[in-house]
Amino acid sequence: MTLHPDRLFPADERTRAIARKLHQRTADLPLVSPHGHVNPRLLSENRPFPDPARLFVVPDHYLTRMLYSQGYTPDQLGVPSADGSPSETDGRVIWRRFAENYHLFRGTPSKLWLDYTFAEVFGIYKPLSGETADEFYDHLSARLTEPDFRPRALFDRFNLEVLATTESPIDSLDPHAELEALPAQDGRKWGGRGGKVVTTFRPDNLVEPDWPGWADRVAKLGEITGIDTSTFDGFLEALRARRQDFIAAGATCSDHGNRTAMTVDDPAKAAEIFDKALQGKTEAADAALFPALMLVEFARMSVEDGLVMQLHPGSWRNHNDWLHKGWGRDVGGDIPDHTTYTRDLKPLLDAFGNDPRFRMVVYTLDETSFSRELAPLAGGYPSVFIGAPWWFLDSPEGIRRFREAVHETAGFYNTAGFVDDTRAFCSIPARHDVARRIDASFLARLVAEHRMTDDEAGEVAVDLAYHLPRKIYGLEK
Amino acid sequence: MTLHPDRLFPADERTRAIARKLHQRTADLPLVSPHGHVNPRLLSENRPFPDPARLFVVPDHYLTRMLYSQGYTPDQLGVPSADGSPSETDGRVIWRRFAENYHLFRGTPSKLWLDYTFAEVFGIYKPLSGETADEFYDHLSARLTEPDFRPRALFDRFNLEVLATTESPIDSLDPHAELEALPAQDGRKWGGRGGKVVTTFRPDNLVEPDWPGWADRVAKLGEITGIDTSTFDGFLEALRARRQDFIAAGATCSDHGNRTAMTVDDPAKAAEIFDKALQGKTEAADAALFPALMLVEFARMSVEDGLVMQLHPGSWRNHNDWLHKGWGRDVGGDIPDHTTYTRDLKPLLDAFGNDPRFRMVVYTLDETSFSRELAPLAGGYPSVFIGAPWWFLDSPEGIRRFREAVHETAGFYNTAGFVDDTRAFCSIPARHDVARRIDASFLARLVAEHRMTDDEAGEVAVDLAYHLPRKIYGLEK
Amino acid sequence: MTLHPDRLFPADERTRAIARKLHQRTADLPLVSPHGHVNPRLLSENRPFPDPARLFVVPDHYLTRMLYSQGYTPDQLGVPSADGSPSETDGRVIWRRFAENYHLFRGTPSKLWLDYTFAEVFGIYKPLSGETADEFYDHLSARLTEPDFRPRALFDRFNLEVLATTESPIDSLDPHAELEALPAQDGRKWGGRGGKVVTTFRPDNLVEPDWPGWADRVAKLGEITGIDTSTFDGFLEALRARRQDFIAAGATCSDHGNRTAMTVDDPAKAAEIFDKALQGKTEAADAALFPALMLVEFARMSVEDGLVMQLHPGSWRNHNDWLHKGWGRDVGGDIPDHTTYTRDLKPLLDAFGNDPRFRMVVYTLDETSFSRELAPLAGGYPSVFIGAPWWFLDSPEGIRRFREAVHETAGFYNTAGFVDDTRAFCSIPARHDVARRIDASFLARLVAEHRMTDDEAGEVAVDLAYHLPRKIYGLEK
Repeated sequence: MTLHPDRLFPADERTRAIARKLHQRTADLPLVSPHGHVNPRLLSENRPFPDPARLFVVPDHYLTRMLYSQGYTPDQLGVPSADGSPSETDGRVIWRRFAENYHLFRGTPSKLWLDYTFAEVFGIYKPLSGETADEFYDHLSARLTEPDFRPRALFDRFNLEVLATTESPIDSLDPHAELEALPAQDGRKWGGRGGKVVTTFRPDNLVEPDWPGWADRVAKLGEITGIDTSTFDGFLEALRARRQDFIAAGATCSDHGNRTAMTVDDPAKAAEIFDKALQGKTEAADAALFPALMLVEFARMSVEDGLVMQLHPGSWRNHNDWLHKGWGRDVGGDIPDHTTYTRDLKPLLDAFGNDPRFRMVVYTLDETSFSRELAPLAGGYPSVFIGAPWWFLDSPEGIRRFREAVHETAGFYNTAGFVDDTRAFCSIPARHDVARRIDASFLARLVAEHRMTDDEAGEVAVDLAYHLPRKIYGLEK
Repeated sequence: MTLHPDRLFPADERTRAIARKLHQRTADLPLVSPHGHVNPRLLSENRPFPDPARLFVVPDHYLTRMLYSQGYTPDQLGVPSADGSPSETDGRVIWRRFAENYHLFRGTPSKLWLDYTFAEVFGIYKPLSGETADEFYDHLSARLTEPDFRPRALFDRFNLEVLATTESPIDSLDPHAELEALPAQDGRKWGGRGGKVVTTFRPDNLVEPDWPGWADRVAKLGEITGIDTSTFDGFLEALRARRQDFIAAGATCSDHGNRTAMTVDDPAKAAEIFDKALQGKTEAADAALFPALMLVEFARMSVEDGLVMQLHPGSWRNHNDWLHKGWGRDVGGDIPDHTTYTRDLKPLLDAFGNDPRFRMVVYTLDETSFSRELAPLAGGYPSVFIGAPWWFLDSPEGIRRFREAVHETAGFYNTAGFVDDTRAFCSIPARHDVARRIDASFLARLVAEHRMTDDEAGEVAVDLAYHLPRKIYGLEK
Repeated sequence: MTLHPDRLFPADERTRAIARKLHQRTADLPLVSPHGHVNPRLLSENRPFPDPARLFVVPDHYLTRMLYSQGYTPDQLGVPSADGSPSETDGRVIWRRFAENYHLFRGTPSKLWLDYTFAEVFGIYKPLSGETADEFYDHLSARLTEPDFRPRALFDRFNLEVLATTESPIDSLDPHAELEALPAQDGRKWGGRGGKVVTTFRPDNLVEPDWPGWADRVAKLGEITGIDTSTFDGFLEALRARRQDFIAAGATCSDHGNRTAMTVDDPAKAAEIFDKALQGKTEAADAALFPALMLVEFARMSVEDGLVMQLHPGSWRNHNDWLHKGWGRDVGGDIPDHTTYTRDLKPLLDAFGNDPRFRMVVYTLDETSFSRELAPLAGGYPSVFIGAPWWFLDSPEGIRRFREAVHETAGFYNTAGFVDDTRAFCSIPARHDVARRIDASFLARLVAEHRMTDDEAGEVAVDLAYHLPRKIYGLEK
């Protein structure tokens, strides 16, 4: 399938013509990706990608969950099991299963991204299906052995200006150090402060006391930092120290995937729960409260050290118990639910919401919060910006509804611009392509309806695609 | 009013042309109606319909509630009162009241359905109004005496392939037996397994202990099945036995109109509440819990006997107390409220959500759940399918918003295709006509925006209209 | 910037042509404004407006909150502080700050309203920006000294038929008496019953016992009415008496900005809380309950005296604590949250929902309630009408989504037509202009899709713009 030059533009010719012109202004801008989840070793090691199935299918929970939803088991798709029991190892078999079911993805963003990637990145211009499965597999396999298809070569070809990865405070930052040690290119370093690849401070696995292994991870944080983390004060001090390591490795942001947006400003209570948790005495209510308490502590740290706080709550992790028990985390078993911000963020905003040193980017999986809560909050607090439509909402309709829902209350300049949110390195250009086309289409409607001039819309389009993410995520020089 | 051939298609000519072509592929497909509420005696007895007011107005709570909302009383509309006090009996008077207020229905699906039915079924091609009320009444009355307007004749003329009715376990299945006893036509029986008219197992009035008469109904279930229902085990055994009767009468589905989607997997607790309820000692919390516990029991039965479980929660039954006290149930006094699925369905999904023998179709009256909860659940669990927009949402805008909200996460193949949901037999073709046109229009937009090819969209249109409901509701041979 | 004659109409030419014709039917209809918040002294005193900054920027919390959200402080914008500490007093400086940031308002209704007002009211046809700030300031300042730009001259030029203000029961009604004393014009009085300017009974500051000064205000109500308000019965009697004063001053409505839509029908409980509150012993739960109890008492009064009850819940007042402490109420720090009606209104509707003497108009800031709760309630209870999209939702997209969400269930005739909701007198024509264009556009789509005839749509457009608000708010002769 070739990619139509007018794809994703509105059908109405008047609006389409405007969208085309707006899109020309953003199509070639560098990609800014401050909220990714690519493994940094991919880029530091720069090895060839494995076979097509392991590149595209096995690690992409958007794809595997759709296939589960129609009766395939993770084993049949090569997803490694939690207990090491065997799963499909033949990449070609996995690929065929996927290709034969490609019709399931009709209308999904996954299909848009894949079709773009097959065509623009790998030069395949026909539709994937059971019949073309092997042809695709052979073509992709061949490309993946070529130097031009190594990760760092693709990074440059993608016109990526900066890519942030996410690491836990107890993860090694070695890959980032290795990237920093690479020779600079056109005056830009591969890693470190101001580098092409930077890290993000994501402490989720240290703030959930009932997540198995929590105490061990707290101890490990102590080892890494040389600070005694057996007290709450020590724990905070170690986190502060570790944030400095992350900042040295280029981090400009922290990232928080709490279950809810609840915040509580009560350090004494946090210390009490921390102590009990280290003694293995966590009660369910405390386990739910600790992340809410820690969010305020992290905001306090952000005021001090300037890391931009990202919050994306509202996903019930590991909802599919069978998947979780059999195949672990992050395999497609998370389900969103109702999320509230006006009430939940108030304690944090009371403390820091009007502080010029504080900035937070808030995401949601609950679209009802866009016009009701997030747009008024971002349009009323200097510290709050609305993050791009995320996860299930990073899609043509999702982005369109987001724009329609927030721009009238928050304007465009209280949103944080487009960022992708992916583990799938090769999908990054496709995701920005979709977002730029949908934003151009949305703005084109405002122009066609005489609600904005061409010039204004062009400026906004460029800001959304490039300047706003650079500014809001702290990436400007 | 004549029906415009382009009705419900988008205004934009490019998209409209595509919609027209897509609609041609589905316009003449047989109607599959696995979720109806037509009284089976209508078809088994095959008597002429009563007068136009009693055919169209009196039993249709969409119409009567709109007239109440503007100050008419149920008495004035001929709705029989609960205590037998008199209400209007002159069909022509009721019809005139309705016709004089037909402008209230501008823009509503009721008006679309009625205008279609007047034109396509009864051959009246002018607008209904106070002025034309008598002309309509006379014309309709004359038609209703003709053999071609008897229910079974209309069934065939409507191109209905299969129609499911809903019966309580304590309802008689005699009408279905009578239908089965009719001579087969073109190789198809009127009733029984694989017949044109089948039943559905709907046990709502046995799972709400505080619904007056509950204990009597439990006892009646015992009589019908010859099983002692004075214990919870006996109650379950009798339900199992009765499901077999329903399956013999053609049922492929059960149907559950619980107040919420709450599920609890705790048979011992269910037994405890059952025992207390039979002793007349039901507490309010138990009354709310029992349906949640029973939903898991019914899922367990579905795993065994293969009935597809339909769940449509979220309606506050008999919200209008004055209507309920004066005129009983199902007269237009139900109001939706907030409904949650991610949390509420988890116990049931933990038990059976990944079991290949289990299948459930989930409906909603709360549109916020479409993108936030139902699409991710259906796109993540093999057993879950999203039911068509239902009740207030079975409308052009409702269906469009549904498609926009779910297809990007769940795709098209985790939805159950279009089904109507009506007591109004004559409105069935009109409802499918609206849905097919709106689905064609929606798919046409995806084609016009180069997100799907013509061929893909054509296949999806046919699947949504015909193949998916046949497959998901277990109607395929 | 000149105003394009096709502004806000859909891009598709077929639909745009229909929208143009529909809009011609409403463009010149008088403006009916039964839900405003303009200060009545503006019209009774009829003084020239102050400088442009104090007319447009300082008092408009839509504008100031957007500027806070980008880091300006209320002081910099001339908003008077709570403690009298100094804030910017130079109107030109404030105006420049606003003008330099006018790009923040791209796509917002504020910008649409301002651009319309600059052009249509003040005759400035260029874009506002930092560069044109002084030119605008000088031009506007000059106009504001002219007699034609005094409030009552503008009232007539705006083609305002009736404007309602809102007063607390303890506010003076003198401005309304002064208006009534003015010479009638074309047979219409400026104030009093049937006058051009009427009042609205808004008792919010008497129903929240924890709002500082509550007991004093209750005492003041006693003074004004000469009724002992130290008992709950006396309090109710005084409110009843005061409603008669308001009715004499032209009021046809009451207005209630409760935190939630909760209603409780329990006068004894209300009396108990009232007594404790007067003794300074209000508990938090009681403080939340009293407004819910009082809403039912006010509904009871409406049944007696015929005032139409308006309810607009769901705003968390003074959410931004820093703004509230520093600059007081109504300065842009209110944030909406989740609001429920089906559950919350049931006690009130059980009591009066089917009473032909009772009428209520319900607004929301939570769009999810439109299709799920408000449309079914308005389409099922004779007393309930849905108010126009309000506050953050009084916008092109907000009005469009409102129409799309409610018309299929409630029809058009269970909505209350368009009303603005503003303190900004000069923005009134702009707001009606936007609403009439968006309603014309929405109806044009229904016509283009053959869901409504031209004639029907034309009638509906006129009803929404003019006849419905006159009828529902009790303004018909």
